[in-house]
Amino acid sequence: MEIKVMKNILDRNQNKADEVRSVLSMKKVLMVNIISSPGAGKTSLLERTCEELGTKFTMGVIEGDITTDRDAQRLKKYNIPIVVINTEGGCHLDSHSISKVLDNFDLDKLDVLFVENVGNLICPSQFDLGEAFKLAVVSTTEGDDKPGKYPMLFREASAVMLNKIDLIPYTNFNFDIFRSDLNKINSKIPLFKISCTRGDGLGEWYKWIAERIDAR
Amino acid sequence: MEIKVMKNILDRNQNKADEVRSVLSMKKVLMVNIISSPGAGKTSLLERTCEELGTKFTMGVIEGDITTDRDAQRLKKYNIPIVVINTEGGCHLDSHSISKVLDNFDLDKLDVLFVENVGNLICPSQFDLGEAFKLAVVSTTEGDDKPGKYPMLFREASAVMLNKIDLIPYTNFNFDIFRSDLNKINSKIPLFKISCTRGDGLGEWYKWIAERIDAR
Repeated sequence: MEIKVMKNILDRNQNKADEVRSVLSMKKVLMVNIISSPGAGKTSLLERTCEELGTKFTMGVIEGDITTDRDAQRLKKYNIPIVVINTEGGCHLDSHSISKVLDNFDLDKLDVLFVENVGNLICPSQFDLGEAFKLAVVSTTEGDDKPGKYPMLFREASAVMLNKIDLIPYTNFNFDIFRSDLNKINSKIPLFKISCTRGDGLGEWYKWIAERIDAR
Repeated sequence: MEIKVMKNILDRNQNKADEVRSVLSMKKVLMVNIISSPGAGKTSLLERTCEELGTKFTMGVIEGDITTDRDAQRLKKYNIPIVVINTEGGCHLDSHSISKVLDNFDLDKLDVLFVENVGNLICPSQFDLGEAFKLAVVSTTEGDDKPGKYPMLFREASAVMLNKIDLIPYTNFNFDIFRSDLNKINSKIPLFKISCTRGDGLGEWYKWIAERIDAR
């Protein structure tokens, strides 16, 4: 019974995700679903991206959080439309909640809509929100074994941001192990080595995401 | 319907958790449910604890992992009984899976059974496994906003291990913000500031957990 219910939930999520995807495609809005563990750097990446590309593209953000609007507060200074979805304990966003908040954006004017999912390396990777693609963020301080131990997200994602590379000298993070595990799961996935604090490696990311926004 | 099913799942989990708790209480085994984000340092804490208290107490470990037995491999050198539960995508352990593996331990001889839950700051906090108490592990590199943004675990836990304090100088982690948020959620909870890599602050933890094992 539980399995059947889970299937129903996933089916209903998928139908709504397809609907969201079709609306966004019609309106030429690129939606990116950003997923990571708590504190890996999703908001910091958004801060950097708004700063760099905010004048070139019209951006919007959906902030998924258990409770509080703290991440949204951090992005307020960029003067872009932000909608907070508080899941009240829920461990992931789903396509129904995305569908409900789309009306809050002027989709005719938007180029890109970033969704910052709830901080969780597991559950969000199983739910299609209607995004163009999923973006995995993982930080060096979590250890080099994350792709091996939590393969689902790395299988689903279209790119991996390896954040906090500035902290590698103070940890036992081994890049070769990380890369080798990732290759076994998704060998062709683009990998960006970045530090959102220092700004390292972000040029390549800006170029990559700008190309995708342009081609939407 | 989904809510009813969720209630059934939680009820069934609770019944089995009560059963596990009663078995462990009869056998005088202290079970500790360790919960954190991926890579916060649960396994490192277990390594340190086995090293320090492994001769004083008889220990066992249940390793909850999506896939792989890597954490168990890290603990093999301590020559203690370890059982791996692979959740195959599941985001938390439940009391039924704990109940099923208890037979693998000689409960008459065991003093303490550590459960390393799946790396997830959200879902595991909602499932009682039949443990004596939950232990929250959080690392400074995840940021000082974790208790505020993910309050459930910090409400449920009986102690908080703040790991990776050796990395504070290289981050913008603000201890006062962390402590103030934690106070709002659970003002009397013991907080241990530790570095499992360097060994800082672990003496207090060893003393605290040893007292609890002795008093079981």
